[in-house]
Amino acid sequence: MSKTIETSHHPYATKSDMLVRLRKIEGQVRGISRMIDEDIYCDNILHQFRSVEAAINGVRKTLLEAHVKSCVVGQIQEGNLQVVDELITTIGKMTR
Amino acid sequence: MSKTIETSHHPYATKSDMLVRLRKIEGQVRGISRMIDEDIYCDNILHQFRSVEAAINGVRKTLLEAHVKSCVVGQIQEGNLQVVDELITTIGKMTR
Amino acid sequence: MSKTIETSHHPYATKSDMLVRLRKIEGQVRGISRMIDEDIYCDNILHQFRSVEAAINGVRKTLLEAHVKSCVVGQIQEGNLQVVDELITTIGKMTR
Amino acid sequence: MSKTIETSHHPYATKSDMLVRLRKIEGQVRGISRMIDEDIYCDNILHQFRSVEAAINGVRKTLLEAHVKSCVVGQIQEGNLQVVDELITTIGKMTR
Repeated sequence: MSKTIETSHHPYATKSDMLVRLRKIEGQVRGISRMIDEDIYCDNILHQFRSVEAAINGVRKTLLEAHVKSCVVGQIQEGNLQVVDELITTIGKMTR
Repeated sequence: MSKTIETSHHPYATKSDMLVRLRKIEGQVRGISRMIDEDIYCDNILHQFRSVEAAINGVRKTLLEAHVKSCVVGQIQEGNLQVVDELITTIGKMTR
Repeated sequence: MSKTIETSHHPYATKSDMLVRLRKIEGQVRGISRMIDEDIYCDNILHQFRSVEAAINGVRKTLLEAHVKSCVVGQIQEGNLQVVDELITTIGKMTR
Repeated sequence: MSKTIETSHHPYATKSDMLVRLRKIEGQVRGISRMIDEDIYCDNILHQFRSVEAAINGVRKTLLEAHVKSCVVGQIQEGNLQVVDELITTIGKMTR
């Protein structure tokens, strides 16, 4: 069950925006399956992969932004600098 | 409806392998939605994004390989070199 | 010593174009060293990294294109399909 | 001229480490020029590009880490949250 708005660490709008976009991504992935099943020309399918990738990357950025603005800033302000190492590790993974 | 094996430009095994993997990716995306909905700690969700990205990239490589080995090689052998420009454009997009 | 134009597998124009761009990239890298040495604000330096990355990626694409259009196409036409596996491995590495 | 250690916002060790690595990258780029000039087989050169990319990405991560640990944390602790938006923009650019 979904947490109530009060206890969530994301603003409600951000959260439902991400959920809507993820649902759309699911549909895009299903679309790729259909294209492969129907033997659509590969180049067109590869183009569709790029859309999915861009959409996923977009949600991930939104999530990271929410994470930094809430958790990370809060913890730094409370003097917990361990969160900084964690953030750097996360960024490192996102950029290969 | 799915084309019969004979007319498909992918080997049957490659095609069903890709479809299985795409179905799994759909499930992974749904899993991210659930994690966001349940307010799981962001860092864990960001990790999940990386799995999805890797899985998508894997299917895309399989598709590109099938494309090159069937369509591209065939067209080159028939003297249609336009397919080469198209391939280069495709690779260019895949590598940013 | 540089090979003569006749024996090179790249058109002469492509080759000198790539060399000019690589020399410029060397200068850009040296510029980053200077910025770090002079304690320029990091965000500006990170921007400079992106320029270098884009420039390197550009040369790499030119090289790959020349490679595909000369070596790969030629070998396929001669019936040597092993070059295709090699190309797929190369593309796979370029896209992570 | 280089700033003195006292005024630099990077620890001295980090700074000289980055400078050494950038100098090595310059050499690697020069190596690629030489390979192209000498008509080395493209696939080998493309491999070399990956080394350069990895090395550049490594320095960039070190710089970002130093940036976050000094500037960003410091500004957040002083209540200047504008630095957070800037960081998010920077990360966004690094991850496409």
